[in-house]
Amino acid sequence: MSRIAYVNGRYAPFADAAVHIEDRGYQFADGVYEVIAVRDGRLADLEPHLDRLDRSLSELRMETAMSRGALAVVLEEIVWRNRVANGIVYLQMTRGVARRDHAFPDDCRISIVVTARNAPPRPAAIVERGVRVVTVPDIRWKRCDIKSISLLPNILAKQKAKEAGAYEAWMVDEDDRVTEGSSTNAWIVDRAGDLITRHLDNAILAGVTRMAVGDLAMKQQRRLVERPFTLGEAEAASEAFLTSTTSSVTPVVQINDVQVGAGVPGPVTQALRNLYDAHLSGR
Amino acid sequence: MSRIAYVNGRYAPFADAAVHIEDRGYQFADGVYEVIAVRDGRLADLEPHLDRLDRSLSELRMETAMSRGALAVVLEEIVWRNRVANGIVYLQMTRGVARRDHAFPDDCRISIVVTARNAPPRPAAIVERGVRVVTVPDIRWKRCDIKSISLLPNILAKQKAKEAGAYEAWMVDEDDRVTEGSSTNAWIVDRAGDLITRHLDNAILAGVTRMAVGDLAMKQQRRLVERPFTLGEAEAASEAFLTSTTSSVTPVVQINDVQVGAGVPGPVTQALRNLYDAHLSGR
Repeated sequence: MSRIAYVNGRYAPFADAAVHIEDRGYQFADGVYEVIAVRDGRLADLEPHLDRLDRSLSELRMETAMSRGALAVVLEEIVWRNRVANGIVYLQMTRGVARRDHAFPDDCRISIVVTARNAPPRPAAIVERGVRVVTVPDIRWKRCDIKSISLLPNILAKQKAKEAGAYEAWMVDEDDRVTEGSSTNAWIVDRAGDLITRHLDNAILAGVTRMAVGDLAMKQQRRLVERPFTLGEAEAASEAFLTSTTSSVTPVVQINDVQVGAGVPGPVTQALRNLYDAHLSGR
Repeated sequence: MSRIAYVNGRYAPFADAAVHIEDRGYQFADGVYEVIAVRDGRLADLEPHLDRLDRSLSELRMETAMSRGALAVVLEEIVWRNRVANGIVYLQMTRGVARRDHAFPDDCRISIVVTARNAPPRPAAIVERGVRVVTVPDIRWKRCDIKSISLLPNILAKQKAKEAGAYEAWMVDEDDRVTEGSSTNAWIVDRAGDLITRHLDNAILAGVTRMAVGDLAMKQQRRLVERPFTLGEAEAASEAFLTSTTSSVTPVVQINDVQVGAGVPGPVTQALRNLYDAHLSGR
């Protein structure tokens, strides 16, 4: 079966799906995106993703003529046309096509691209054994709360992780505090069993999985502390993990060359992963 | 006459010039660019632009199979096919098309896009009366020395300038020092007649016009001091100006609400502008 993409009002064969070279997404990274999980053919946590999309658009002062209802129909149609049972939907909106000039064009229609694909099952080792992260200096801009396509520092960080044989790169600010991963949020569990993850500010993205996991933890009467934590705290934590739509809850058992806790996925992480999986599946 | 663009080995009508939605330039801002002036049909300062392009590619570890000679032929062909006498050539290279994944793809061919257009004569008032700049906090990433398409903070800054009725936004760092404009380098002339512009580091782009103007100034026995200057210094300067390929040497006569010097273009700026114009025209 050939894949189908939605591009500016049309459903097109994926191989032919194209945008104009003067799309401001291509020339200026002037756009935003979302990645939404599909479980059993159903879009998971759709509303919080669309809430965050609205916020990103609003922060960049982009106005789409497409209602939330119409957009949801396109997302579902793309899932259906691509026969996605378990995978992801990728949605990108840019300010549109205009003659190259930095300032916002006076008249411009937002470009909308939607794709979907089945995701292969993740290697069991990732969940059973946990993963390693490396740390890199956080050199990103000061509005990482906007889920923009301006991702060059993120890909450079992820590439460093890949070359180090690690799963993810955690970004560390000038005060030695972990902000977040290149495409995931960062968490630790301290010796008292409390969950710690950075509070929301301009330095990190408000992860939808982060929010869901925080809610699930609190329902379990677990204490959640939203504050920055240092690299030293993370190395001394009893557990660590990362969250994102594509990574779900993934145990972190090593940071650079330092083993975290017992060096195996901890009970708090595993419990949250199971709760989150049930949440995604709507159970 | 219809415009023609060069896209990945083909010359295509501009209106149809497109790239795939999974081009990493579109999804990750994973690319670099150059803007080169055309004077009397000739590419101005081509070598320093291609040197800088090589450096940007190297910093992002992108390898193009296209030799400098072959690229120069394409640039000249695009100038000729678009009948550009005085204007600009825009050249963009991205890491290419690959299934969306942050880390570099294992196998990927660099995308190359080249366009050109005649530039309308700039309003005489800009040169005769000078322009106003506003200041904004510099919230960009820490590798602004790479001429990447990750330009979201730059367009937000330029938009603020536009809305304030100003020509450009100067970015000011946490120590109250001017780094550069959203698409230009920033200069002042102090009371002793010395030229001051920020030294090259990761906070600014090594402007080709900046370099040419610096060379011209030194040939005139003018002292050039490359160091950061504060906003206060700029407000107290006898002259200020900005440089870029598209702005040439443009006098700055007001910073926010503060008049610079006599509030009219100063003699040092005007002399440098004339020298630079002659340089561009190869005289």
